Amino acid sequence: MNSAARASFEAWMRQALRDVEQALERWVPADAPAGLGEAMRYGVLDGGKRLRPLLVRAAAEAVDGAPEAALRAGVAVELIHAYSLMHDDMPCMDNDVLRRGKPTVHVRYGEAGAMLAGDAMQALAFEVLTPEDGSLPPALQARLCALLARAAGHAGMAGGQAIDLASIGKPLGEAQLRDMHHRKTGALLQGSVLMGAATGVATEAAWNALAEYGDAIGLAFQVVDDILDVTQASDKLGKTAGKDLDQDKPTYVTVLGLDAARSEARRLHVQALAALDRSGLAACEHLRLLADMVVDREH
Amino acid sequence: MNSAARASFEAWMRQALRDVEQALERWVPADAPAGLGEAMRYGVLDGGKRLRPLLVRAAAEAVDGAPEAALRAGVAVELIHAYSLMHDDMPCMDNDVLRRGKPTVHVRYGEAGAMLAGDAMQALAFEVLTPEDGSLPPALQARLCALLARAAGHAGMAGGQAIDLASIGKPLGEAQLRDMHHRKTGALLQGSVLMGAATGVATEAAWNALAEYGDAIGLAFQVVDDILDVTQASDKLGKTAGKDLDQDKPTYVTVLGLDAARSEARRLHVQALAALDRSGLAACEHLRLLADMVVDREH
Repeated sequence: MNSAARASFEAWMRQALRDVEQALERWVPADAPAGLGEAMRYGVLDGGKRLRPLLVRAAAEAVDGAPEAALRAGVAVELIHAYSLMHDDMPCMDNDVLRRGKPTVHVRYGEAGAMLAGDAMQALAFEVLTPEDGSLPPALQARLCALLARAAGHAGMAGGQAIDLASIGKPLGEAQLRDMHHRKTGALLQGSVLMGAATGVATEAAWNALAEYGDAIGLAFQVVDDILDVTQASDKLGKTAGKDLDQDKPTYVTVLGLDAARSEARRLHVQALAALDRSGLAACEHLRLLADMVVDREH
Repeated sequence: MNSAARASFEAWMRQALRDVEQALERWVPADAPAGLGEAMRYGVLDGGKRLRPLLVRAAAEAVDGAPEAALRAGVAVELIHAYSLMHDDMPCMDNDVLRRGKPTVHVRYGEAGAMLAGDAMQALAFEVLTPEDGSLPPALQARLCALLARAAGHAGMAGGQAIDLASIGKPLGEAQLRDMHHRKTGALLQGSVLMGAATGVATEAAWNALAEYGDAIGLAFQVVDDILDVTQASDKLGKTAGKDLDQDKPTYVTVLGLDAARSEARRLHVQALAALDRSGLAACEHLRLLADMVVDREH
């Protein structure tokens, strides 16, 4: 990428991140009772790569979708992601004390506080998708709720976490590992792309191509995560490195080895870009650059 | 009530409960991975009074609502209720080991299992409201999601639980106690009535009357709960009796005294019935009888 293209992409990202932060600031209630709002805001404001809202926005642009709908969809999916981290970090799950360079929510607000804040954030995601001010057509509200609920639930993220939990200390084959990550990380990343696509008009061919793109980068994200867990230090990751190994969790690195995991990431990257080529959509540049970012990231 | 009317109400309830059990049996997935489906089903099948689905159905009948929509709304609200119990029973919250006469979900499936199953159940509620088979008009799907998310979230149930958690060992005034229960129990009970009302056509006056009915029985339910907690034995309640006192939680009985709590329940009962009289709706008989049931119940 030449420097003008890079500068343009970076400016696009900055604007997108600003919009998401402002919307989260506005929609995650500071006044929820008894510390609940404070814990919710602590868990979701000022942190994270915001990859999911970026994917929603890029996909929405590719299908000429409504910006307000894309913003709400991006915030909703980020709320689901943030709640899942809050619950995942709890002592009964991964028992992690560091996230995005800060103490995790249960360390700061107690276990009950973190559980409740996560529960309220999941509900808030669906509140954000169903504004009562007429800013989103009802049929689109319903479609976005349908996509988000399925990406977050038993067939998606929550199901993947159940497999993850059950797989500690057990050998998994590559197919089982892939199934776990398809659900645990992939479903919500693919869901982000599809929610973006739902805000505009996509042919069936374009929809299917975007679904394949989302699937490929969803898996690629997890493969790269597994690689970074063994190759990077905690301060760079903003979370505890080497955690998967310590907890005896199967990862792409333990199952395939480091070199094969790197090849797999490259293969998925190529697959994602090929799907965009086949989509017939003209404005795919940001989706393309986000795929590069997912694979080339260092934290 | 004469015996023919009672027999007719009981037959109506049996049919409603059968429909809800069958729908839960069908929609709560047995095949969700790694024990997740099993824990979800354990937490919601075969148990509970199903008061919320009954309220949805009775309200839907009062506005001539679509039965399929009322069934989906009833199941969704019961899934939210059941997930809240699963999380509420966990050691970091109420630490309860007995529910509906059975070991609680975390006792049976572990804390992580109970937390994940609850998370997946909340998502499932929104899946049930957004079927992809054309059985519910998209605008109604959106409306039901909007009502449920707000009843379940920070302004409703989750907010009430946060106040509950923060109030242990602290004196609460009657107004604060009322605010807590408005959110914690009342929001979802009122939400049930309003979701039922949304499945048909209600004038603004009827809608407001149903909202007041839902509000009154929501509070009445909690007042009666607090009374039963001190007057009934565990085996009759199917859960641990005397729990609130043991945990030093403020209740209507500790704040008002037993006699005043009983008067308050009667006052709310009268208020609920008066709202129905004002609604202008003809087919309110089942809502009326459900209000009686809420106040007269013994467990």
